[in-house]
Amino acid sequence: MGRWEPGARERLQRAALELYVERGFEQTTVAEITNRAGLTERTFFRHFADKREVLFYGQAELLETGVYAIAGASETTAPLAAVVEALQLIAARFEERRESARQRQTVIAANPGLQERELLKLASLASAMADALRGRGVAEPTASLAAEAGVAVFKVAFEHWIGEPGERTLSDLIRDSLDHLRAATAG
Amino acid sequence: MGRWEPGARERLQRAALELYVERGFEQTTVAEITNRAGLTERTFFRHFADKREVLFYGQAELLETGVYAIAGASETTAPLAAVVEALQLIAARFEERRESARQRQTVIAANPGLQERELLKLASLASAMADALRGRGVAEPTASLAAEAGVAVFKVAFEHWIGEPGERTLSDLIRDSLDHLRAATAG
Repeated sequence: MGRWEPGARERLQRAALELYVERGFEQTTVAEITNRAGLTERTFFRHFADKREVLFYGQAELLETGVYAIAGASETTAPLAAVVEALQLIAARFEERRESARQRQTVIAANPGLQERELLKLASLASAMADALRGRGVAEPTASLAAEAGVAVFKVAFEHWIGEPGERTLSDLIRDSLDHLRAATAG
Repeated sequence: MGRWEPGARERLQRAALELYVERGFEQTTVAEITNRAGLTERTFFRHFADKREVLFYGQAELLETGVYAIAGASETTAPLAAVVEALQLIAARFEERRESARQRQTVIAANPGLQERELLKLASLASAMADALRGRGVAEPTASLAAEAGVAVFKVAFEHWIGEPGERTLSDLIRDSLDHLRAATAG
C-alpha cells in the first residue's frame, strides 16, 4: 500500500461516520475504521490525531474563512451584516454535504463530550469573528454581540437545515433566521 | 466532627476556589480542599460528586429559575423580553458574589475542559428557555433565536461585569447589552 493514498482522508471520514452512526462513537475503534476504509492505521494517524478529530477536521479553515471575510468586508458593511456574510461563506462549504452533516450531528447529539467540543468550536468562531470586528474598529460590546448573534443565527439555521426534509438551502435558512432575529429584537 | 456541618458547602466552595486560583484546577486535590476548609473528605463528597462539580454547583436551580420565569411572564410579553426578564432573575443571584464569580471565571478560562463544560451549561439554559417559549406558543425559529440571543446578551454582559473595575451592576450591563444588540440588528 503506497504512502500517498488518493482520497484517503475522505474514505476514512466516510467509514468513520458510518461506523459512529451504526455502533456509536465510543464503541468504534480506529482499527474498525481503517478496515472498512481498506487502509492502514498508519494512514489514519497521518490524517487524524484520534477518532474524535475525524469529526472536527477542517474547522480551523472554517474559522479562517470567517475571519478573512470580516476583515475584507467593505467599509460601509455594518457589523452584523459582515458576520452574516462571513457565515454565508462558511455555509457554502456545507451545502453539498447535507447527508454527512446530518450523520455527524446525530453522532455528536448522542455524546455529551462531543457536544461540549462542538460548542467550544462555535464559541471559538464567535470569539475570532469578534476579534476581526474589533480589528475593523467596531467597539465593545457591539463586536461581541454581533459575533454571538451571528453564530446564533447560523446555529438555528443549521439545525433546521439538518432536521427538515425540505429543499431549502442552508444559505436561504440563514437569511430567514436573520430576518426572524431582527423581528424578535425589534419587537 | 458532626454529620451536619453548618455552612460546610460554602466553606468547601471558598477553599476550592482559592486553591484553584493559587495552584490551578488540575493540581488541586480534594484532600487539599478539605484541609483548607477544616472538613473531612466524607463531608466533601456529601456535597459534591467531584472537584469539578464545586464550580458548577447550583446551575440546575438557575435553569429552573429561567424556565419558571418565562412560563410565568405576562401574556403580552414578547419572546426576547421574557428571556431577558428571566436572565435578570438569574443575574440577581450573582450581584453579591462578583469576586467569587471573577475567581471562578479565571479558573475556567485556564482550562479547556472546564470551558467546554461551561458552554454546555449555557447551551442547556438556552435550550430550556426555548422550550419554555414554545410552551407559551412561540413558533420556531423565533423561540430558539430569542433564547440564543438572550444568552448572548447575558454572556457579553457577564464578561464585562467580571472584567471591568467599574461600579455598574450586572443587571444594568444586561440592559445595556440588550440595547446594543437591538442597535446592531436594526443597523
